[in-house]
Amino acid sequence: MKQIEITFVRVYMTDDEERHAHLVKRLHDEEKVRGVTVFRGVSGFGPSGRMHEARLVDLALDLPLVIEFFDTPEKVRRILDHLEDQIAPGHIVTWPATVHE
Amino acid sequence: MKQIEITFVRVYMTDDEERHAHLVKRLHDEEKVRGVTVFRGVSGFGPSGRMHEARLVDLALDLPLVIEFFDTPEKVRRILDHLEDQIAPGHIVTWPATVHE
Amino acid sequence: MKQIEITFVRVYMTDDEERHAHLVKRLHDEEKVRGVTVFRGVSGFGPSGRMHEARLVDLALDLPLVIEFFDTPEKVRRILDHLEDQIAPGHIVTWPATVHE
Repeated sequence: MKQIEITFVRVYMTDDEERHAHLVKRLHDEEKVRGVTVFRGVSGFGPSGRMHEARLVDLALDLPLVIEFFDTPEKVRRILDHLEDQIAPGHIVTWPATVHE
Repeated sequence: MKQIEITFVRVYMTDDEERHAHLVKRLHDEEKVRGVTVFRGVSGFGPSGRMHEARLVDLALDLPLVIEFFDTPEKVRRILDHLEDQIAPGHIVTWPATVHE
Repeated sequence: MKQIEITFVRVYMTDDEERHAHLVKRLHDEEKVRGVTVFRGVSGFGPSGRMHEARLVDLALDLPLVIEFFDTPEKVRRILDHLEDQIAPGHIVTWPATVHE
């Protein structure tokens, strides 16, 4: 397999349908990243310290949500520049990784 | 965006409500980490080799659970020292990452 | 705690029961990795660009699935050699990490 150096990204939000759907659509339609996966957490808290937790199965609007994607370091840098005004500070984490293809 | 070097942590447990809730509460109340997200896996196994799997929707107590958090390397080192006696060996994984804020 | 250098692996698939169950079984029975966790995403897309999304709770067959595991760099290299023909190109991501035990 060929190995390509990438930057791996995790963006932390809560499960506000519209906002996260907008970000995924943008990564898909405009930024054209290689792939995106969205995960819903079962509980968590952010810098505000306020706990988000699933107490009722049908009340998932306030749960943590992670939008995960990866692409070349240059492309991720460009995407993060575009996202800067849309994501709260401290909610984007990146690290170097390798994709095997 | 400003970039801060952090240590990213994933702690692997099974879905024993009390034990993981205790850990999240501790990270929140005492260690005051920047944020924690808890994810439930749909199946998995640990060093024991015993499979954990969701066969019944309402029987989720034995599913894998990951508690994810990040903070400065010094703070994470201190937290891991505190957790040493509470988490089974081989169930904590860390790597260096960058938070954008 | 003792620290051991590992390679952390995430394999991206969709929720085709048989295929992912086969991979987990193989990692368990044959490769004997230290542990595997499977997570189901709530939406996502891969290199094909086609969106996978949960619209109906009971129609989860097409959702993204991540199979996560870690082991020593040598062992992971050997496992990835074995998986080469089973996983679509660009669907395996790895990075160096540390396990605490």
